[in-house]
Amino acid sequence: GSFGLVRTHVNVDPAKLKSLRQRWSVKPSEMSKKTLNPIRAIVDGMKLTPNPEKPMIALSIGDPTVFGNLPTDDTVLQAMKEAIDSHKYNGYAPSVGYQKSREVVADFYSCPEAPLDGKDVILTSGCSQAIELAISVLCNPGDNILVPRPGFSLYKTLAVSMGIQVKHYNLLPEKSWEIDLQHLESLIDDKTACLIVNNPSNPCGSVFSREHLHKILSVASRNCIPILADEIYGDMVFPGCDFQPLAPLSSDVPILSCGGLAKRWLVPGWRMGWILIHDRNDIFGTAIREGLVKLSQRILGPCTVVQGALESILNDTPPEFYQGTISFLKSNSEICYSELSTVPGLNPVMPSGAMYIMVGIEMEHFPDFQNDVEFTERLVTEQSVFCLPATAFEYPNFFRIVVTVPEEMMIEACIRIREFCARHYRPRSQDSHELDQ
Amino acid sequence: GSFGLVRTHVNVDPAKLKSLRQRWSVKPSEMSKKTLNPIRAIVDGMKLTPNPEKPMIALSIGDPTVFGNLPTDDTVLQAMKEAIDSHKYNGYAPSVGYQKSREVVADFYSCPEAPLDGKDVILTSGCSQAIELAISVLCNPGDNILVPRPGFSLYKTLAVSMGIQVKHYNLLPEKSWEIDLQHLESLIDDKTACLIVNNPSNPCGSVFSREHLHKILSVASRNCIPILADEIYGDMVFPGCDFQPLAPLSSDVPILSCGGLAKRWLVPGWRMGWILIHDRNDIFGTAIREGLVKLSQRILGPCTVVQGALESILNDTPPEFYQGTISFLKSNSEICYSELSTVPGLNPVMPSGAMYIMVGIEMEHFPDFQNDVEFTERLVTEQSVFCLPATAFEYPNFFRIVVTVPEEMMIEACIRIREFCARHYRPRSQDSHELDQ
Ligand SMILES: Cc1ncc(COP(=O)(O)O)c(C=O)c1O
Ligand SMILES: Cc1ncc(COP(=O)(O)O)c(C=O)c1O
Repeated sequence: GSFGLVRTHVNVDPAKLKSLRQRWSVKPSEMSKKTLNPIRAIVDGMKLTPNPEKPMIALSIGDPTVFGNLPTDDTVLQAMKEAIDSHKYNGYAPSVGYQKSREVVADFYSCPEAPLDGKDVILTSGCSQAIELAISVLCNPGDNILVPRPGFSLYKTLAVSMGIQVKHYNLLPEKSWEIDLQHLESLIDDKTACLIVNNPSNPCGSVFSREHLHKILSVASRNCIPILADEIYGDMVFPGCDFQPLAPLSSDVPILSCGGLAKRWLVPGWRMGWILIHDRNDIFGTAIREGLVKLSQRILGPCTVVQGALESILNDTPPEFYQGTISFLKSNSEICYSELSTVPGLNPVMPSGAMYIMVGIEMEHFPDFQNDVEFTERLVTEQSVFCLPATAFEYPNFFRIVVTVPEEMMIEACIRIREFCARHYRPRSQDSHELDQ
Repeated sequence: GSFGLVRTHVNVDPAKLKSLRQRWSVKPSEMSKKTLNPIRAIVDGMKLTPNPEKPMIALSIGDPTVFGNLPTDDTVLQAMKEAIDSHKYNGYAPSVGYQKSREVVADFYSCPEAPLDGKDVILTSGCSQAIELAISVLCNPGDNILVPRPGFSLYKTLAVSMGIQVKHYNLLPEKSWEIDLQHLESLIDDKTACLIVNNPSNPCGSVFSREHLHKILSVASRNCIPILADEIYGDMVFPGCDFQPLAPLSSDVPILSCGGLAKRWLVPGWRMGWILIHDRNDIFGTAIREGLVKLSQRILGPCTVVQGALESILNDTPPEFYQGTISFLKSNSEICYSELSTVPGLNPVMPSGAMYIMVGIEMEHFPDFQNDVEFTERLVTEQSVFCLPATAFEYPNFFRIVVTVPEEMMIEACIRIREFCARHYRPRSQDSHELDQ
């Protein structure tokens, strides 16, 4: 034919037909079955029946927008409307983002010790996809990654679904959640592909000092392990404390720093994230960069309207907006901390940033409950207050409070938690304790 | 300590240290290396140096917005601005999308033969992610999927990166690109996890008749193979032709229909796509649905502002907008077809929808060129017209023209293609042909 193409017309082999499926059987893939979300698994397994006499207060959701008390800045909304009106941001962008938008992010985060330009930035669909791409490019099935305990559960969810093993290194609550560096280093083996450092931390609200970051970098450098720095809460630290991004402190360790608009600009639904590629010693080289570009082509980048708005969002949002958020978070954290630190049986750890506070439960004083899951479940039943049991972060006997709720709610929640604890607390002498054993 | 947690303080074993990396070696993962984009590979390998005396005309890019002649409707932009002004769409949505937005899509596509409600819709980051999720939930490494040749390259890119084998079934240009059903059926084996049907087609611009769709469904039904229907160009068919979605024609074959705003609403950058789950015979059951939900939790859903705008976009966009796009595409297709069908050596195939036209090259009449890649490369060098060689769609000796360019450009491009062909065409008798062998 005029189409000049050889085509095969094969008849169906009857013998082969026998081996075919004779009835329907469509099963979900192993990958989808291995994609486990511990928060969902735990929360879905809880009996969450609030006390009908008390309105529900959810201190569980890491979404600062739910109560309406922390709106984003008008500049941010205005930037979106201008991007729409410009008619310039409706078509496909390059899969790693518009060059201009990448440059805007690079300029925003560039500093003399760790200069960035457009080519060092990959725009992603939220920080979640930034983390997914970073893990995907660095790790093969059979490798392992080092993740904090307690820590954000997505690292494990993604890694396990890809056949990557997860090793947890401990954070030390009595040292403001610093990393147990000896433990960290003991976990490294020749299959360790990446160290994930989350600073400021979800769920701890902790912020690492410069000195501690130097020590973390030493471990990575000594063992030649690249770092995925999850800095989505970057700059969200309380006055008096200083956020130090990881990359400027090192000139050898290659770092993929993941961030986005979600938290600091209070628009998590917009799904705008990024990877900043720090590689001053040329260890990632072009290979890792090309790997990231290839992976970005699977689903293409984030929404172009948000990309178009980035320049104004990053450059024109007034400092008062950021300060306002931070002083609110600090004030709520202090209320929560000071209320709960006088509750017998609870040990809150004062945060220095982000939007969370972790509270230790002295389980031996609450014999009514087996663990943090039961404790928080009953807190809902009796007091209509919902805190996430830290088992969701691989850290039993703690719970996490989100401090973005309106102040009155924060206060009311603390009062109810105190009431709940008073009701269930059993002061025990050393003797009575031993008698129980 | 009061935190009630046992922690391990392990010393680093010096013997173990030996086995650790002593120098840096960070390599991109196998997965990233296996994520191959044939269009990029081919285009990046071409020497694309336009003739400086002729302005470049790119007929290669499947983005209808690049020339500004096909703007989206004002309703669509207005809907976005209202979503922003409402302040309701800044927080996290459920990872499968807001319930309300899912219902809006369900209502838009529901019909009596294939009813849909909110739970049957998963919102995704573009149709690309819809396809990624659908393949991910249905297939395991080692399985195979059936994809059209010529066909959209993303299917293979995604499948190969996941270790899924791709088998190409032939489309027949002389039968308006219908599927060679015998060939299709011959490819099925017990590892076949899914049949991908793309209708209307990229790159062919073809639209299957109801009868042909019935025959495709019979093959799937007989062999118990679920279908991924890529219907991103759904309803983009020329007057006189009818777009028939696949799902309403079958009550047994389970179908994941993938679509989105990109093409019909002319906003591909907004990354709004969806999966419609059709499963009237309960073959997917809850397992596949739950698998999709789990997978969606990896990076969370599409931009919430676009989700918020969906209701008005789908319900308020005036029919004239859709009709306007279609009559433009039809008119440009006719210009292109009638111009090129009188060019000796070329065989355009008239499309019935979408935004593409495939043109066969009688390579034996163009001895200056080895193949479609060389042909299109030289078309750039000499005439500054860039068409995508169909090798990018696994279909050599054709090229694809995008018909969304302004009419004058379409006409000018056809004139230049004619000039180019006239210059390189060698009419050959049967004899001279044989002499060459
Ligand atoms: C530590 C951490 N990293 C990443 C993310 C994900 O951010 P995004 O919503 O931009 O995907 C979160 C969200 O809660 C987080 O707490
Ligand atoms: C057949 C086909 N399916 C899917 C897509 C991807 O659509 P989206 O931009 O919504 O990811 C395209 C884009 O060109 C396409 O041609």
